[in-house]
Amino acid sequence: MKTLTGKDLAAAIRAQTAAEATAGPQPRLAVVVATADDAGLWYVRSIAKAAAGVGIACDLVDLGPDARPERIGETLTRLSADPNVHGVILQTPLPAGASAQELAGSIDPRKDVDGANPLSLGRLAAGLPAFPPATAAAVMALLDHYEVDLLGRRAVVVGRSTVVGKPLAHLLLDRHATVTVCHSRTRDLAAVTSTAEVLVAATGRAGLIGPAHVAPGAVVIDVGTNPTPDGGLTGDVDFDAVAGVAGALTPVPGGVGPVTTALLLRHTARAANLP
Amino acid sequence: MKTLTGKDLAAAIRAQTAAEATAGPQPRLAVVVATADDAGLWYVRSIAKAAAGVGIACDLVDLGPDARPERIGETLTRLSADPNVHGVILQTPLPAGASAQELAGSIDPRKDVDGANPLSLGRLAAGLPAFPPATAAAVMALLDHYEVDLLGRRAVVVGRSTVVGKPLAHLLLDRHATVTVCHSRTRDLAAVTSTAEVLVAATGRAGLIGPAHVAPGAVVIDVGTNPTPDGGLTGDVDFDAVAGVAGALTPVPGGVGPVTTALLLRHTARAANLP
Repeated sequence: MKTLTGKDLAAAIRAQTAAEATAGPQPRLAVVVATADDAGLWYVRSIAKAAAGVGIACDLVDLGPDARPERIGETLTRLSADPNVHGVILQTPLPAGASAQELAGSIDPRKDVDGANPLSLGRLAAGLPAFPPATAAAVMALLDHYEVDLLGRRAVVVGRSTVVGKPLAHLLLDRHATVTVCHSRTRDLAAVTSTAEVLVAATGRAGLIGPAHVAPGAVVIDVGTNPTPDGGLTGDVDFDAVAGVAGALTPVPGGVGPVTTALLLRHTARAANLP
Repeated sequence: MKTLTGKDLAAAIRAQTAAEATAGPQPRLAVVVATADDAGLWYVRSIAKAAAGVGIACDLVDLGPDARPERIGETLTRLSADPNVHGVILQTPLPAGASAQELAGSIDPRKDVDGANPLSLGRLAAGLPAFPPATAAAVMALLDHYEVDLLGRRAVVVGRSTVVGKPLAHLLLDRHATVTVCHSRTRDLAAVTSTAEVLVAATGRAGLIGPAHVAPGAVVIDVGTNPTPDGGLTGDVDFDAVAGVAGALTPVPGGVGPVTTALLLRHTARAANLP
């Protein structure tokens, strides 16, 4: 069983991004936050730190956990119009009554470096240029880095979120995989997932995927980042048990996560260099 | 085996649409054409005739088969801004060098009654209000009309076009089916399609789906409209052979087609009544 770590790939993407970041004006990423959620704020701090490491400026725009949806939308519109800002992301969770999908429609697609605007998703699905969500792009980057063949292969994605499962299904289809999307209402999940040559778990349910869900030799990508009682992270896949069946498996942490952050920054550098 | 005809359903939708069309200003649909293709022009004439039957005005805007993409885009923008026009569709095929997906981005989503703008597809995928493509909506309307249960069922869509396969996958996911998308690169198509409880063929390849592709008792929806040498239409499904295996099957013609046209008109009437 091969462990598909993301650290070397992330480092390579960061090095390339640092070079791209010096090619024009300094790239600037604005992160809009309207939460007091610890995990969300931790992630934002990790982005800011990683941005600094590759020469990208990162502005935290904190509207507070009680921000009205109108104010969030206006902020995204203002940042989209600011020529000094090249990338705009809206951190979740949001205050009650605010729809991330609806609000992200206010992010200029050319600055939508985490592919959150429904227009970006639609363009992705239609095969037009767009930034995909960084997490979905990270799954593809890992598959490419480890030279996993996709053409005509059976890929199964567990999870149908707008930020991971759905865009990932389109990216896999674009690479000519036969793609199945499963979710919480899927009957006999293991019967479906065990047909996968490439299995991607993106459910947010710790340990959901066990050995009975995996075909011998399958490539398994674990997108889950579930908090553990001791303050760590664990994936959607029961790593130790699945390691005995899968041909290759990403660890959590250290798999998809670091590649996601690196790609978010690469998208920002590229947004700054758009003609 | 039950034959799932679309004629009664289409008639019911037209009757309802005729009532909706009298609720406010007369709905007006503009059809932009830039082709000399016979099938395309035949379809446009059939829309115009059906529109007249339910009290919807239909303008044919013929730019000729040599229209430049810029002119097509400007026309879509102008019609989108015209308060007397409620629905705008762009008929394919288009002149060489023109991208239907890219040009449809010029159709106001509120008038995009055939769900062609990538933003409509993205909003559909994100679970936000949008007009789905009429063909994809017609498949769902037929499944509902014949009370086909979708929750947790295995649905397989053959074909990954932006106008049918991809939006349909999202509509089926939204109804909690487990959804697989197959296409020309799928290996052992019959092995995948024969797992389907609901099978939708949307490939444009006459007779591609035979009895070996279909599980006993499956519900099969045939979206194909392939011309026959005698001037008729035939589907993607080998009707006579599959009828011996399937539990239910749509005919071609007389299945999805009439429902598609009726829904395009319903979308136009609803666009005219949007607040």
